[in-house]
Amino acid sequence: MAPHAQRSPLAPATIVKLPGIAGVRFATGAAGIRYQGRTDVMLALMDEGTTVAGVFTRSKCPSAPVDWCRAHLGGGTARALLVNSGNANAFTGKNGAEAAAFSARLAAAAAKVPLDKIFLASTGVIGEPLPAEKFGGVVETLVASATEDGINAAAEAIMTTDTFPKRATACVDFGGVEVTISGIAKGAGMIAPDMATMLAYIFTDAPIAAPVLQALLGAGVKDTFNAITVDSDTSTSDTLMLFATGAAARRGAVRVDDVKDARLRNFRRALNKVLKNLAQQVVRDGEGARKFIEVNVSGATSPGAARRIAMSIANSPLVKTAVAGEDANWGRVVMAVGKAGEAADRDRLAISFCGIRVAFQGQRDPAYDEAQVSRAMKASEISIGVDLGLGRGRKTVWTCDLTKEYIAINGDYRS
Amino acid sequence: MAPHAQRSPLAPATIVKLPGIAGVRFATGAAGIRYQGRTDVMLALMDEGTTVAGVFTRSKCPSAPVDWCRAHLGGGTARALLVNSGNANAFTGKNGAEAAAFSARLAAAAAKVPLDKIFLASTGVIGEPLPAEKFGGVVETLVASATEDGINAAAEAIMTTDTFPKRATACVDFGGVEVTISGIAKGAGMIAPDMATMLAYIFTDAPIAAPVLQALLGAGVKDTFNAITVDSDTSTSDTLMLFATGAAARRGAVRVDDVKDARLRNFRRALNKVLKNLAQQVVRDGEGARKFIEVNVSGATSPGAARRIAMSIANSPLVKTAVAGEDANWGRVVMAVGKAGEAADRDRLAISFCGIRVAFQGQRDPAYDEAQVSRAMKASEISIGVDLGLGRGRKTVWTCDLTKEYIAINGDYRS
Repeated sequence: MAPHAQRSPLAPATIVKLPGIAGVRFATGAAGIRYQGRTDVMLALMDEGTTVAGVFTRSKCPSAPVDWCRAHLGGGTARALLVNSGNANAFTGKNGAEAAAFSARLAAAAAKVPLDKIFLASTGVIGEPLPAEKFGGVVETLVASATEDGINAAAEAIMTTDTFPKRATACVDFGGVEVTISGIAKGAGMIAPDMATMLAYIFTDAPIAAPVLQALLGAGVKDTFNAITVDSDTSTSDTLMLFATGAAARRGAVRVDDVKDARLRNFRRALNKVLKNLAQQVVRDGEGARKFIEVNVSGATSPGAARRIAMSIANSPLVKTAVAGEDANWGRVVMAVGKAGEAADRDRLAISFCGIRVAFQGQRDPAYDEAQVSRAMKASEISIGVDLGLGRGRKTVWTCDLTKEYIAINGDYRS
Repeated sequence: MAPHAQRSPLAPATIVKLPGIAGVRFATGAAGIRYQGRTDVMLALMDEGTTVAGVFTRSKCPSAPVDWCRAHLGGGTARALLVNSGNANAFTGKNGAEAAAFSARLAAAAAKVPLDKIFLASTGVIGEPLPAEKFGGVVETLVASATEDGINAAAEAIMTTDTFPKRATACVDFGGVEVTISGIAKGAGMIAPDMATMLAYIFTDAPIAAPVLQALLGAGVKDTFNAITVDSDTSTSDTLMLFATGAAARRGAVRVDDVKDARLRNFRRALNKVLKNLAQQVVRDGEGARKFIEVNVSGATSPGAARRIAMSIANSPLVKTAVAGEDANWGRVVMAVGKAGEAADRDRLAISFCGIRVAFQGQRDPAYDEAQVSRAMKASEISIGVDLGLGRGRKTVWTCDLTKEYIAINGDYRS
């Protein structure tokens, strides 16, 4: 388990158990990279013909595994995914690139698949050399022990400061054949994805061509993983990948090669639901989080303006500490709207907390009952609504409150 | 005093006592706007002919007093400045504008000066109606009791969560006549000035035309008040004003009407020193601050790029909590460089803490001694150096660490 192991009070009541995905098997092991007494490495083995899509951090200093994945995504097919926790292999220079390549060679040899179909990720401390030789002792065993059901344990092996494993699944009709989408993610801190959280992997047995898969993922990420923030800090390792084994073809599913194919309609909806579910779980496990916050911005001049205003609110330490203090401090929401740099007219602004309008037309709503709002702020799920009154742009983002526990976790995470 | 009154450990060893500025008198009083048992209003009365310059928040939801000041700055002259703490008169709609105008009329009548030469500011809670009628009982008394020496008490009357009054002064030769520059500021939280901190006022007896004054202030703010951040939150009320009474003309100083005038060289340097001193004091009183952090970025592709990278580091909650934990966590500095969106090459990056190089050419500096760095991190003044190795752009910014006290102060400031 993670060093800060008490489960977040915002965790889902039930941690769902995922059904396996035909065509992909998982195994986990303990390589002792950093943590003791827990798993810290997972291997996923995919059948031949598995297609792949990915989006990665926009950090200008990406990790070595992100570089590796980007370089090999063009082929559009994947046979194995090797992920470790405890060390991010980021800012590790040439040695880091060599450690990534060494890990990939180990996995390719053990799984007997081509090197360029191996994908990698590392999560944990930045800047420490990755002792990739430690994988040598475990990769063969992982290949031998991989099972479809292993996806549930895989969600645990990739955790760092996470307090619960993040899983989501959906079944969907795919041109008359039922296919499954199952995903896992890890998160907790350094979460302001500019495309994805630190690590999230989605698997499906649907037969879908790689360019279509990439289009689906690129579109789906906008209102899911790109709509969350824990602390405004974008990781060097953010990786979100989607693998389609195509195993449902054996049950009669016909491969989709065109992004306009009508059979994608249900699939797209189900995929986006899984992405949103996982993204929200990342926020629910935000370091030190005690409140889950949904920020709804409407009436902005464009969806982009709405997003920037929503993120300005969601990233404001003063808004987040006010929510932690159960204070419906809409003055700080005004401040965050004002600093976003987007068009705003004080005299048209309306602000609500938990559905109760507290400010309207540039001033305090005379009808609002502070006692009622105070009661609402005690809930663990808080919504903040802002209507700009200027246009039709709207966007929803999710974040968590900022508590002393965030400081405690990050003031002594490394040392 | 402020609600959180224990003096910041980063406060200057001595709180300087300011010399008066000929041509401007100050008075303070207790109007009971919000605080009890302390002063919360200050009035400055300026001699006829006083020129004025100002820069204000770039917030799209500025306070009513900011709107008022902007509307009257064009005249270039000032006779009085009325400031209250405890209520920001921001997001208060038409009533707020009326409260500002009412306050200005009170001051103009009591001081017997034109209404358009009155400047205003309010600092404190956002969104509550300002009970401007409370000024009625005190303004007459303030006019009667104003003295040059009152500037020192004025620095206390404008405090909110500040733990010490912020003052700075300089004397400078001005074409053969010595002139004085004295300034006061308040800060503490909601500090990410996009031009100035919440409130700062600089006074001088030098005779300088208003357009020249504005040029000096606009240039001086860049590497001083625009180079600090406490929490990345930009206030609705940020106001920095510079008043020149011209009283030194009575001692032979000749008025400067041209920004290229050689006599401004010393003055500009002294003014910038006062601005920088006050800006740094704001950071030293950052809410909950225990460490003062200087971030030096060099080798960027431009000064603008250097500034954005430096601010990305200075605003990163993960960097700030690491410093609070006395952890030279350069991996988080890499992360902050990477998320800034500016050109960066991992393999050319060098990072130092307190002058000790910890990372070089894309990886941990093999020569660095962790024990030595750990000792250095125990100091209350920490420097973080980043060299991009790409160009000649450099910039220095200042911030403070992020501690549990910041959360405590802001989790229950309003309620």
